[in-house]
Amino acid sequence: MRRTVHQLAVSTLALGAFAMVARSDEGMWLVNEPPRELLKAKYGFDLTEPWLQKAMLASVRFNSGGSGGFVSADGLIITNHHIGAESLQKLSPPGKDYYRNGYYAKTRADELKCPDLELNVLQEIIDVTDKVNAVVKTEMKPADAFAARRKVMADIEKESLDQTKLRSDVVTLYQGGAYHLYRYKKYTDVRLVMSPEVGVAGFGGDVDNFEYPRFNLDVCFFRAYENERPLKVQHFFQWSMTGPKQDELVFVTGHPGTTNRLETYEKLRHRRDVTLPYTLARLRALEAALAQFGERDPQYHQWAATDHHRAANSRKAFSGQYQGLLDSQVMNRKKADEAELTTWNGEGKPPVTLVQARRAFTQIADAQKVVAEFEREWALLERGDAFYSELFVVARQLIRLRDELPKPSSDRLREYRDSNLESLKFQLFSPAPIHAELERAKLTASLTWLAENLGGQHPVVVQVLVGKSPASRAVDLVAGSKLADVAERKRLFDDAKALDASTDPMIVLAKAIDEAARKLRKRYEIEFEEVERQGFGAISRWRFEKLGRGVAPDATFTLRLAFGVVKGYDVDGESLPFHTTFGGAFERAEKQGHRDPFVLPKSWMDRKAKLDLSTPFNFVSTADTIGGNSGSPVLNRAGELVGINFDRNRHGLVRNFVYTEVQARHIAVHSAAVIEALTKVYDCPNLVAELKDAKAGD
Amino acid sequence: MRRTVHQLAVSTLALGAFAMVARSDEGMWLVNEPPRELLKAKYGFDLTEPWLQKAMLASVRFNSGGSGGFVSADGLIITNHHIGAESLQKLSPPGKDYYRNGYYAKTRADELKCPDLELNVLQEIIDVTDKVNAVVKTEMKPADAFAARRKVMADIEKESLDQTKLRSDVVTLYQGGAYHLYRYKKYTDVRLVMSPEVGVAGFGGDVDNFEYPRFNLDVCFFRAYENERPLKVQHFFQWSMTGPKQDELVFVTGHPGTTNRLETYEKLRHRRDVTLPYTLARLRALEAALAQFGERDPQYHQWAATDHHRAANSRKAFSGQYQGLLDSQVMNRKKADEAELTTWNGEGKPPVTLVQARRAFTQIADAQKVVAEFEREWALLERGDAFYSELFVVARQLIRLRDELPKPSSDRLREYRDSNLESLKFQLFSPAPIHAELERAKLTASLTWLAENLGGQHPVVVQVLVGKSPASRAVDLVAGSKLADVAERKRLFDDAKALDASTDPMIVLAKAIDEAARKLRKRYEIEFEEVERQGFGAISRWRFEKLGRGVAPDATFTLRLAFGVVKGYDVDGESLPFHTTFGGAFERAEKQGHRDPFVLPKSWMDRKAKLDLSTPFNFVSTADTIGGNSGSPVLNRAGELVGINFDRNRHGLVRNFVYTEVQARHIAVHSAAVIEALTKVYDCPNLVAELKDAKAGD
Repeated sequence: MRRTVHQLAVSTLALGAFAMVARSDEGMWLVNEPPRELLKAKYGFDLTEPWLQKAMLASVRFNSGGSGGFVSADGLIITNHHIGAESLQKLSPPGKDYYRNGYYAKTRADELKCPDLELNVLQEIIDVTDKVNAVVKTEMKPADAFAARRKVMADIEKESLDQTKLRSDVVTLYQGGAYHLYRYKKYTDVRLVMSPEVGVAGFGGDVDNFEYPRFNLDVCFFRAYENERPLKVQHFFQWSMTGPKQDELVFVTGHPGTTNRLETYEKLRHRRDVTLPYTLARLRALEAALAQFGERDPQYHQWAATDHHRAANSRKAFSGQYQGLLDSQVMNRKKADEAELTTWNGEGKPPVTLVQARRAFTQIADAQKVVAEFEREWALLERGDAFYSELFVVARQLIRLRDELPKPSSDRLREYRDSNLESLKFQLFSPAPIHAELERAKLTASLTWLAENLGGQHPVVVQVLVGKSPASRAVDLVAGSKLADVAERKRLFDDAKALDASTDPMIVLAKAIDEAARKLRKRYEIEFEEVERQGFGAISRWRFEKLGRGVAPDATFTLRLAFGVVKGYDVDGESLPFHTTFGGAFERAEKQGHRDPFVLPKSWMDRKAKLDLSTPFNFVSTADTIGGNSGSPVLNRAGELVGINFDRNRHGLVRNFVYTEVQARHIAVHSAAVIEALTKVYDCPNLVAELKDAKAGD
Repeated sequence: MRRTVHQLAVSTLALGAFAMVARSDEGMWLVNEPPRELLKAKYGFDLTEPWLQKAMLASVRFNSGGSGGFVSADGLIITNHHIGAESLQKLSPPGKDYYRNGYYAKTRADELKCPDLELNVLQEIIDVTDKVNAVVKTEMKPADAFAARRKVMADIEKESLDQTKLRSDVVTLYQGGAYHLYRYKKYTDVRLVMSPEVGVAGFGGDVDNFEYPRFNLDVCFFRAYENERPLKVQHFFQWSMTGPKQDELVFVTGHPGTTNRLETYEKLRHRRDVTLPYTLARLRALEAALAQFGERDPQYHQWAATDHHRAANSRKAFSGQYQGLLDSQVMNRKKADEAELTTWNGEGKPPVTLVQARRAFTQIADAQKVVAEFEREWALLERGDAFYSELFVVARQLIRLRDELPKPSSDRLREYRDSNLESLKFQLFSPAPIHAELERAKLTASLTWLAENLGGQHPVVVQVLVGKSPASRAVDLVAGSKLADVAERKRLFDDAKALDASTDPMIVLAKAIDEAARKLRKRYEIEFEEVERQGFGAISRWRFEKLGRGVAPDATFTLRLAFGVVKGYDVDGESLPFHTTFGGAFERAEKQGHRDPFVLPKSWMDRKAKLDLSTPFNFVSTADTIGGNSGSPVLNRAGELVGINFDRNRHGLVRNFVYTEVQARHIAVHSAAVIEALTKVYDCPNLVAELKDAKAGD
């Protein structure tokens, strides 16, 4: 069963069935099932094994939710400023604000160790589909099927971990159509090297988010360490000093988070009519609470910055998705695709697979009705929408660890499996500060949201609020909890009796609702997820019969390879160029009256005369990306880094559901922009030298 | 039946039954049923007829939703900046922003006529309860009762209008326990005299809204004109140069909008669990859309300013209400009050009234269940939550005017009754600009809200969106409509055939949904409002038996008199003084780093040295106010104006449901602050002289 990337890549050729004519640049491809034929046919590009190996081994996953890449043999990593943001914030000592004002370590000794940043570097992928599927028998009840699958996945992971010492995750692909084991090297000593100010990294703020033309130096440098020394890496991306040209073929490697392209019409309808309205209303409530909190005081503003950015970014992304799902063109296309799939004559393929696929569409539709009954309660209590608080997360982890660890690994709630424990504890015992005022604001907002959704008389609401308003209950919970102190967390983790006896109000709360939360999780997993997974498995099998692996699986926050061409587009009669320039940034700031969020940092205003204003700043390409691709290296044919992906335009927001390349683009920082800024604005000769000299090793 | 204020005031004495001991300062009292005995007993104050007459005739209602008062014999009026805001915005020519930068008419010729501001001055109140109740027979079906009541009210109003030429409104008091006819003089030639900058009028913005200590010059001066000349008024408030002292008795006259204190426990529960969560989610969506729109461009920011302020203000007020209703103390107090009322032995009062009252509580509870089934659709389609657009309002008015005017006045939808037509047309044909970009943003937000609430497949959503996303549908609707042009509105109003044939997309939309909207309105009026009104009528009758008129009716945006004492309060162990000072404003700006919304205008920073920094700025009192009281004159025993009410503190947000005076306060601009600022910051000698010299006439 075990195959290397190389073997898998070759075997993919046999899957055939690509419609080669006029194929779009769609696809977040598995690195073990890459689009070799497509690239050869459309772009005359030979995707070689060494090229792929480097792409994989030099790509970095930020476990906090982003991508990046090695750019020197000394473990130097580039990502987006907005991916580094959380660490920038946690690293800022009182009175400093690295997120806002930037940071530069002049020497290695000045590089700052992030309190809880974990990076993963993929080493190997192994197809374990047959092994997983073998344990699930058709006659099994959903609960048994779910348990059997969870067990076999945990066993595979545990075995792999014991064998290789590598982080080992079984990833569900095609919503249940395939299972691959991913093995990662893991780095938890990661240090901040350099970051620009948020004013230029996030220039244009929420206004320009998901827009183009853009002018953002959305980059940030970290360095991985091992045994207190900079990590020596064999594979890294050489820095391109010229960047990409018009119409040039480029590649994006990274970790797209979630797409929904293989979901059924009925599931998308549920998403549109149930899930998204709830999600949007929730995000608005959180965003408003964070904005209002930040307005109260400059210090609060600093503390709330990344939470606020995250909420605003999600809100804008989900709003775009929602608008897209109300566009009948999108939904009609989905309907037509399904009709095509379920009326295909099969060309001799097993008709039983078609029958199963057809039935699966109905099963998935029914599952939406089932989940509609308790989805909201599940989201509030189990996903934690009601408890938007780091202290609560700590409290829940502690009591669940107490309850789960005595069980065999394969019977635990999945996140407590042995192979995940190290990462989980790394987060749980993070020394990053927790600010009581921010906790209060977030908890007030989310407890209010709980009551708004379930009503003031719902038993859970009564139990949680104990007769108080959400605002005053939040005051009590935060003021009474000692969980901000890591030593207290360790004490309660080590001493089950102390945990049992704890009167910490956050612990008491987490305990009080845990039974209800677990019940909801069980229903969600068995009555909904398991049914969907079996349904999608059946549909995927039929799709493979028709298209082979000619359609990439939906994104799963695992390493993917996308490709496209660098080119501008027309909008409202205007032709937008494929790249912007430094000069454009100053013009936009000027035109917007230098008001927030269009205030370029003082460093830029002061050095304007020194800068080459024609330096390309941001560029766009048709490559297929989504959230999670933030910080993704953009590579040229030679495998050099020509850019760092940081956003999509608004036309690309619908890419969760359908790929389009007429106007949809991802947006990247141009490699030349980084060099020009590091040289002339930030005076980072060492860093520039490290990037320029990084030529060996691959 | 007709009684003047004087006669009624005297007759009130006969109602008796006041519990005189330790009575709080609760009450937004009817000016024809004033709390004479209470004031005499608690404060030794004789509420004389001339005092009351002046309070009534010098108080002004801003029909756009606020209060004010005459302060000179030449029709000079003071109100809040945030009440004048909409006019300031509409009056600003391109390139100017009076809302932001203020305005001062050095001469009367410079006073700017507001495009659509209507002021009302109450002249007389007549109790018509018996007349209204006489037409509603117990055996009537709700639909007939509703129609009969609507008819008699319209007839009374029409008769009064014909007879007196005064604006005549029958006001429903005690949720149906009493009906009074209000006669107003109406002024539609209202001119802007002076306004400070929003930076000092709204200093602290959303952060400080509903907070104290405060530092706001939230005032604005207008002048009423008649026949192109300043209105000569006999009754106006003399300006107090000293303002109020600690513990001084003060009065507030104004137009509180809505309170819910006499609502039943079950109705409040419905409010908490159904109405408020919907309202809060909606306000967040609108506020976010307006904030995001305003961020895009300084011009957009200006256009969206008052809509944005209104949404934020409502959001904060409703949030406070919601928190209050989740506080079990508030709800338990309500329950106890009801128990007391329904278990009172009656002391010989008619037991049939008690029986009716008890039954009424059940009827009202049932009505909540009924309305829950269609409240959301009603709010979206009939109240217009789905169509947050001035162009849509115009379109609906045009088609409803066409449909309603041919009917007898008393059979029309209430707002189209003859006695209201003039005011309605004054708004409909307002020449105030309508900005397409703002319309698009608002319509996008509200159409999105429509879809989120009803789902993408709801027939109304399908009908309204015609297969497009809300955003692109909004583009089409706004771009295609000519209703921003007043001439076009007049053409379609005058020519029914042209209106029938119109292909203006906004007209077509308003027509398309009108049948559904009217159906919902009918259900709402008959199945819900009528049932509630009869129920509350019965409860009120029983309450009158027990307490007489010792409890004031809930607020109805009609003139009320409140009273209280000027005093500070303790919060979190800190004693807050009864007034702040100019010096405090500069200190707060400094402490907040002079960042938005804590940026004092340049005019203030430049004149700081000239100002007496010990000048009292804002003060608080226990008087009972609510939204709608904005701009209310605050008077001393002599009937002089000592302040202008502009806000409550957060402890007062729960006053919608219960009065409390431990910490709850209303907040007013101190009269001395206005004089000091007009003199030393704004160089308005004429205005100051007019205020100082205004001694005659009353």
